[in-house]
Amino acid sequence: MTVLYEGKAKTVSTTEDPFILEIEYKDEVTAGNGAKHDFMTGKGRLNNLISSEIFMRLEEKGIPSHFIGRVSETRQRVKKVSIIPLEVVVRNIAAGSIVKRLGFEKETEFVPPLVEFYLKEDALNDPILTEDHIKLLDIASQDEIDTLKNNARRVNSTLIDVMGQMNLKLVDFKLEFGRDERGNILLADEISPDTCRLWDKDTNENFDKDVYREDTGSLIDTYERFYNKLEETK
Amino acid sequence: MTVLYEGKAKTVSTTEDPFILEIEYKDEVTAGNGAKHDFMTGKGRLNNLISSEIFMRLEEKGIPSHFIGRVSETRQRVKKVSIIPLEVVVRNIAAGSIVKRLGFEKETEFVPPLVEFYLKEDALNDPILTEDHIKLLDIASQDEIDTLKNNARRVNSTLIDVMGQMNLKLVDFKLEFGRDERGNILLADEISPDTCRLWDKDTNENFDKDVYREDTGSLIDTYERFYNKLEETK
Repeated sequence: MTVLYEGKAKTVSTTEDPFILEIEYKDEVTAGNGAKHDFMTGKGRLNNLISSEIFMRLEEKGIPSHFIGRVSETRQRVKKVSIIPLEVVVRNIAAGSIVKRLGFEKETEFVPPLVEFYLKEDALNDPILTEDHIKLLDIASQDEIDTLKNNARRVNSTLIDVMGQMNLKLVDFKLEFGRDERGNILLADEISPDTCRLWDKDTNENFDKDVYREDTGSLIDTYERFYNKLEETK
Repeated sequence: MTVLYEGKAKTVSTTEDPFILEIEYKDEVTAGNGAKHDFMTGKGRLNNLISSEIFMRLEEKGIPSHFIGRVSETRQRVKKVSIIPLEVVVRNIAAGSIVKRLGFEKETEFVPPLVEFYLKEDALNDPILTEDHIKLLDIASQDEIDTLKNNARRVNSTLIDVMGQMNLKLVDFKLEFGRDERGNILLADEISPDTCRLWDKDTNENFDKDVYREDTGSLIDTYERFYNKLEETK
């Protein structure tokens, strides 16, 4: 197995099958573009368990993704895709950057949910894009943009339902997509409290990485509680 | 006449007719959100002459605007509109903020021309908006957004033609629109080298406010030359 990519949270390697990759989730956690950086035993296991479980729920709803199966506590196998360099953000409730950038009052409900695209490019600070920018940058065609938006909305409906059973509000989340060797668009990357903003329905307490970003609690305890709640909804 | 609005470059006053306003163009010029600020005799006259002439050319092409007529060297009369708080930017060639923000190479040609919307809100630094943001902020409906885009593209075609006769490339420009008392959308504000980025076709020399922003020449001389060229295309 050859390492294709080593990031802060994951290592992606080739397998014996040219169309299949293996992702290892690591025990590292960072925030603020690397300003905070820690090792936390158990982080990789929890993200792998949670993301695998969520991708299986999405598969049951017919949402096409790269996920094949979890092969150990910290590893999963996925279909090889070429990642589209976009962060697809879905917002149900105003929080975070949209409050600061556009002046929406925090907790404003977005009806219908808002779908935004950001360019995955650290050097430019992941700027927001319009659909015309995406086409002029040759990142995706209008048909592909429509597919990304539709699939993001379908993921949102399923996640709202699952999180609702866990007494959590799905505030917003980030998705990534890739193209397989035939050009089909598949949901990729991970879905976990690292990539979602989740609030307790009664108390608005955070059930996501904000506990680490804002130093308001133990990330491992929070993710463990999240995973246990998720398992209870089976 | 009551002053309704006094900005750095213009004063807007009521007239004897409740549906008509008078705009006086002033001899002030600013850049960098007020970081540079100067008085320049003749600036108001030139902007008023240029913008009046351009709005008349647009009227000949059937583009609906607030412009009624020029009443003196520094004053014009316009239909009263409620300004839509958007800057509608049309880009034919990459320059300025889009190069820095999205990494387009300078002078990249945009085919088709790019239309962007920015929120007019100094306190937020005029952030870029998607069409979904515009709808969620209750700024305009989808039909109105479509009208803004179509009218911006029609203005672009006419301006490319006029500037072309002046041996100038129309790089990009900013428009504002308003609604009259019946809700019709009219082109408003001004069109001048203050609101356009214009390059000489042969030398790429600036024929716009960048000569002031970047201290590369006399603003009054540049605008005077621009106005003379514009008059020659009659």
